[in-house]
Amino acid sequence: METQLEKEILRGGQFLVKETKCEDIFTPEDFSEEQKMMRDSVIEFNDREIIPHRDRFEAKDYALTEEVMRKAGDMGFLGVSVPEEYGGLGMGFVSTMIVCEYISSGTGSFSTAFGAHTGIGTMPITLYGTEEQKQKYVPRLATGEWFGAYALTEPGAGSDANSGKTIATLSEDGKSYKINGQKMWISNAGFCQMFIVFARIENDKNITCFIIEKDLNNGITLGEEEHKLGIHASSTRQVFFSDTVVPAENMLAGRGEGFKIAMNALNIGRIKLAAACLDSQRRVTTTAVQYANERKQFNTPISDFGAIKLKLAEMATNCYAGESASYRAAKNIEDRIAMREASGNSHQEAELKGVEEYAIECSILKVAVSEDIQHCADEGIQIFGGMGFSKDTPMEAAWRDARIARIYEGTNEINRMLSVGMLVKKAMKGHVDLLGPAQAVADELMGIPSFETPDYSELFAEEKEMVAKLKKVFLMVAGAAVQKFGPDLDGQQQLLLAASDILIEIYMAESTLLRTEKNAKRFGEASQEIQIAMAKLYLYNAVSIVEKNGKESIISFAEGDEQRMMLMGLKRFVKYTNYPDIVDLRKAIAEKVKGENKYPF
Amino acid sequence: METQLEKEILRGGQFLVKETKCEDIFTPEDFSEEQKMMRDSVIEFNDREIIPHRDRFEAKDYALTEEVMRKAGDMGFLGVSVPEEYGGLGMGFVSTMIVCEYISSGTGSFSTAFGAHTGIGTMPITLYGTEEQKQKYVPRLATGEWFGAYALTEPGAGSDANSGKTIATLSEDGKSYKINGQKMWISNAGFCQMFIVFARIENDKNITCFIIEKDLNNGITLGEEEHKLGIHASSTRQVFFSDTVVPAENMLAGRGEGFKIAMNALNIGRIKLAAACLDSQRRVTTTAVQYANERKQFNTPISDFGAIKLKLAEMATNCYAGESASYRAAKNIEDRIAMREASGNSHQEAELKGVEEYAIECSILKVAVSEDIQHCADEGIQIFGGMGFSKDTPMEAAWRDARIARIYEGTNEINRMLSVGMLVKKAMKGHVDLLGPAQAVADELMGIPSFETPDYSELFAEEKEMVAKLKKVFLMVAGAAVQKFGPDLDGQQQLLLAASDILIEIYMAESTLLRTEKNAKRFGEASQEIQIAMAKLYLYNAVSIVEKNGKESIISFAEGDEQRMMLMGLKRFVKYTNYPDIVDLRKAIAEKVKGENKYPF
Ligand SMILES: Cc1cc2nc3c(=O)[nH]c(=O)nc-3n(C[C@H](O)[C@H](O)[C@H](O)COP(=O)(O)OP(=O)(O)OC[C@H]3O[C@@H](n4cnc5c(N)ncnc54)[C@H](O)[C@@H]3O)c2cc1C
Ligand SMILES: Cc1cc2nc3c(=O)[nH]c(=O)nc-3n(C[C@H](O)[C@H](O)[C@H](O)COP(=O)(O)OP(=O)(O)OC[C@H]3O[C@@H](n4cnc5c(N)ncnc54)[C@H](O)[C@@H]3O)c2cc1C
Repeated sequence: METQLEKEILRGGQFLVKETKCEDIFTPEDFSEEQKMMRDSVIEFNDREIIPHRDRFEAKDYALTEEVMRKAGDMGFLGVSVPEEYGGLGMGFVSTMIVCEYISSGTGSFSTAFGAHTGIGTMPITLYGTEEQKQKYVPRLATGEWFGAYALTEPGAGSDANSGKTIATLSEDGKSYKINGQKMWISNAGFCQMFIVFARIENDKNITCFIIEKDLNNGITLGEEEHKLGIHASSTRQVFFSDTVVPAENMLAGRGEGFKIAMNALNIGRIKLAAACLDSQRRVTTTAVQYANERKQFNTPISDFGAIKLKLAEMATNCYAGESASYRAAKNIEDRIAMREASGNSHQEAELKGVEEYAIECSILKVAVSEDIQHCADEGIQIFGGMGFSKDTPMEAAWRDARIARIYEGTNEINRMLSVGMLVKKAMKGHVDLLGPAQAVADELMGIPSFETPDYSELFAEEKEMVAKLKKVFLMVAGAAVQKFGPDLDGQQQLLLAASDILIEIYMAESTLLRTEKNAKRFGEASQEIQIAMAKLYLYNAVSIVEKNGKESIISFAEGDEQRMMLMGLKRFVKYTNYPDIVDLRKAIAEKVKGENKYPF
Repeated sequence: METQLEKEILRGGQFLVKETKCEDIFTPEDFSEEQKMMRDSVIEFNDREIIPHRDRFEAKDYALTEEVMRKAGDMGFLGVSVPEEYGGLGMGFVSTMIVCEYISSGTGSFSTAFGAHTGIGTMPITLYGTEEQKQKYVPRLATGEWFGAYALTEPGAGSDANSGKTIATLSEDGKSYKINGQKMWISNAGFCQMFIVFARIENDKNITCFIIEKDLNNGITLGEEEHKLGIHASSTRQVFFSDTVVPAENMLAGRGEGFKIAMNALNIGRIKLAAACLDSQRRVTTTAVQYANERKQFNTPISDFGAIKLKLAEMATNCYAGESASYRAAKNIEDRIAMREASGNSHQEAELKGVEEYAIECSILKVAVSEDIQHCADEGIQIFGGMGFSKDTPMEAAWRDARIARIYEGTNEINRMLSVGMLVKKAMKGHVDLLGPAQAVADELMGIPSFETPDYSELFAEEKEMVAKLKKVFLMVAGAAVQKFGPDLDGQQQLLLAASDILIEIYMAESTLLRTEKNAKRFGEASQEIQIAMAKLYLYNAVSIVEKNGKESIISFAEGDEQRMMLMGLKRFVKYTNYPDIVDLRKAIAEKVKGENKYPF
């Protein structure tokens, strides 16, 4: 039964069909004093312990990664969200995001080590562990006495994580399992003390999860460090289990529950990965503008050239959008956890359900922000010109490190398809009513469009209408696709990918608008002039992506009159009454970044 | 006075305002027996001498680069276009492109060494040298007895190449110059025997070019090898000149002629760089599809997933488009050289003018193909999943190596702006009549559109009309911009960039269509089914880019009724009567690539 509170918080995926008021979203400007203090202490840590040692991280100094991880443990950063009774700080989900974000911009190596340990390495136990398991392992993990790793992937089982061949065989006395198999790409394998390992019992449909201590005398061997494109000081190894004995009580949750654990762990990993990419964007943008202000060609600081301004504006805008959407979702998760606790769930249960609820948003964020940091670093290189290609400047490492974010925690293809797939599933289950709104859009298409000129005098009046129309595009396209293909929709991957691009842009653009509107209302529009420009620029770009994907989809599944009608609808839904001059918007945004000589938002 | 022949060959930039018949373009399918033999022997060389040694190139084995360069010299590859009297093979420009292309896919390191030597390292002498200079240096360079390097860039002078601080001081007896200054990012510096160096005499407006032999006892010192993101075995060093004495007769062309030499050398470098990126795309696509056919997830070869098909189709299509446009332009250059020679120019003069004529096309190709290979390698990584991030597979090196192509030979920003800038200049000079056609488009906008349903039964009838309409978009946008901003257009970089994106897509899409049409006519449509699909897919994507950039531009400089009228025009110009189903096109293309287990075109 839903409580009053529950009704007020949007459910996962509902952003698509319900209007969100700007007052109802959380923004980085809403950080509490405690959160700000946490942020500042993490920034200070990053500036002191990580940034100055970039060269050592690049030189694959794995010991440094471990050392700094231990220091992060001393600071309490490894246990931010771990309940106090297990040695953590017991802070909320937003604080976890903040720590993840600000500790990550120094190097992708540390970011990965941190993420693998605190996220997928620790969370399976806090979320699914028995009291004994939690008592035994979590305090060590939360303080950095021990480090964790997550061993799901195998040579033959990557995206298809449930297909692993590692097996767990129960001993005759029923007291232990023997694990045999090969795990691959295991972050932190080199220095961790404990693995979360997934293995199959007999011919089970689903894998099972075990906590396995790293005892090299217990049939565990490690491969060499992998030679990687980026994140050079992140330890990534194969792990071989050969008759490794695990006490039966080290099984996490029940037999066959492993796949669910794996998916939920990744899920949280995804939104945290988005956070981890944010401060990197900020730093790349800052480094880039500082260089552009210094570097002169043709007797002009290159930051005065329109080509460079365009880049700076887009870099800043995407970062601002990423922040907006990430913290919106993070607070939804935090609130939902609180709500569930208030209604009687254990913290553990509440956390599990809270995060599960927003799996769609987590996938959206993972894809959007991992692509933004790649693009940001790419433009960073380009702004540096030849120097961008040099290992003596920080751009190329940022670019290489960014590349992994589109591959792990589920590839971006998998996450794109998941985001739409989960939404459709939620609709089927009745958790999100898509059918009603989709029907309404279909009806609207048949009707006569209104030719009234609406009143757009209020801030974002037209923009908010625009977002509402983009939602209609999604409903129109996805609705029609579900109807046409039914259960075969899964096979229409090009369509799913296009739909997810639409979905992603809607969420990102709406979050950006809402954050800005909220701030304009409380701090005054004048103070948010550039943020308003960014929100408009982001939306314009989003509309263009939606139009492209919408069109391609419609053409692919509709013909003749139906195609014409839907294309007309699309045209109507992506049409501005007053087009924003995005050339000017970019100029204004870039001027601000230039003037402040950093990412200033 | 124009000869008859001259009238028949399109001038540079004229593709925009004149229709080209498919019979009039040269395609890779038109390679002569000699050209095919050359191609095959280069492929054989690449397979034998470069590909198997990728690891050594990645491990920065500079000596290997030098050794293979010498072997390439033994094969005659370094002197393909060098006239026989200077020790070369005296082949045409198309052959040079072929060699450049097929020798480049093994590693960006060799590709860069080859390009720097044969292009910017040798061409300044063949194009501008006196008979004595040519006799002295070219035979050595053409055979690989000596290697050349090109020293233009300085710490303070990159894009603004004419601003270098290196100075050349005439000796009192007038017999020599003393060179003082610092050059940076000099490819081949480590193993070359000769530099093309640019330096300023007194307070000259323009720099002057010198041939300087690498005598380390003559005030020449080298910096350490740069640490670079990619092209690891390409030698890149700083070069310091301290009272280096050069005989006065080593000045190339006249005093102050250096900037022109620099620009023309880069110009040829650009189209060759495009060629150099083509076979890499082919190889990446082939490697990717082979992996995708092998790799199974969810009990399915991943090449069966729509998400992977989409990638394979776009990779193949862009490569095919790049080939089409590159060889179209290459043959134009070759023909123009021949025409000028026929009309009495020396080979040297003819070559110079021939290449200069197509500077716009060279910039277009440089930008388009360098971005395609980046995208191709990026998707290559993604298809490999986690393995794509590993140095044990060839994708990540391809991705890193590709990154330089967007920076050197003029950054892509500079080349984008140049392409439009040169076109406008040509129009001003009357070499290309843009004003007439632009006026015609303006008139058309005011008129009533025809509502006849045209006959699209012939192959590409609608597509060719579409290209004609895209040209109108360019004329409408650029025409209006020139009118609005006049000489201030240079300052409107966002606009120039948008216009150049339109220009680029027109050239690439048209070339792709024409190649395919030509082949369909002679080999039969049935044999070109997939090529037809690629031409349609490329065009569809091009239309979408043109629409986006056109819209953004129009909104930025037009308001009210004018904006509405131009946006209506735009809409008309990007509208298909029958939209192609690009989802299906991609499937068909991918099926072909999958089936052949390689890039098969
Ligand atoms: C540096 C690094 C660190 C890592 N750390 C860890 C770790 O700590 N623990 C851990 O368990 N794993 C880890 N991984 C593994 C990572 O999670 C996997 O690489 C990722 O899930 C992709 O799996 P894969 O590499 O097998 O690619 P594949 O699954 O083989 O994918 C190859 C391609 O096929 C596509 N594809 C696959 N299935 C489908 C489908 N159904 N439909 C459409 N497209 C599909 C993918 O999107 C991708 O483009 C790490 C990987 C790397 C590179
Ligand atoms: C690996 C490597 C090999 C090289 N090999 C050689 C070689 O053999 N010989 C040689 O002479 N040089 C060589 N170069 C140098 C190369 O040509 C320059 O790096 C390139 O021209 C860019 O110059 P820059 O690095 O000074 O960048 P900058 O000119 O400083 O450019 C920085 C940024 O500003 C932008 N910008 C600059 N001017 C403008 C403008 N007017 N309007 C808008 N945007 C602008 C650029 O597009 C870029 O984004 C090499 C470079 C590298 C990295």
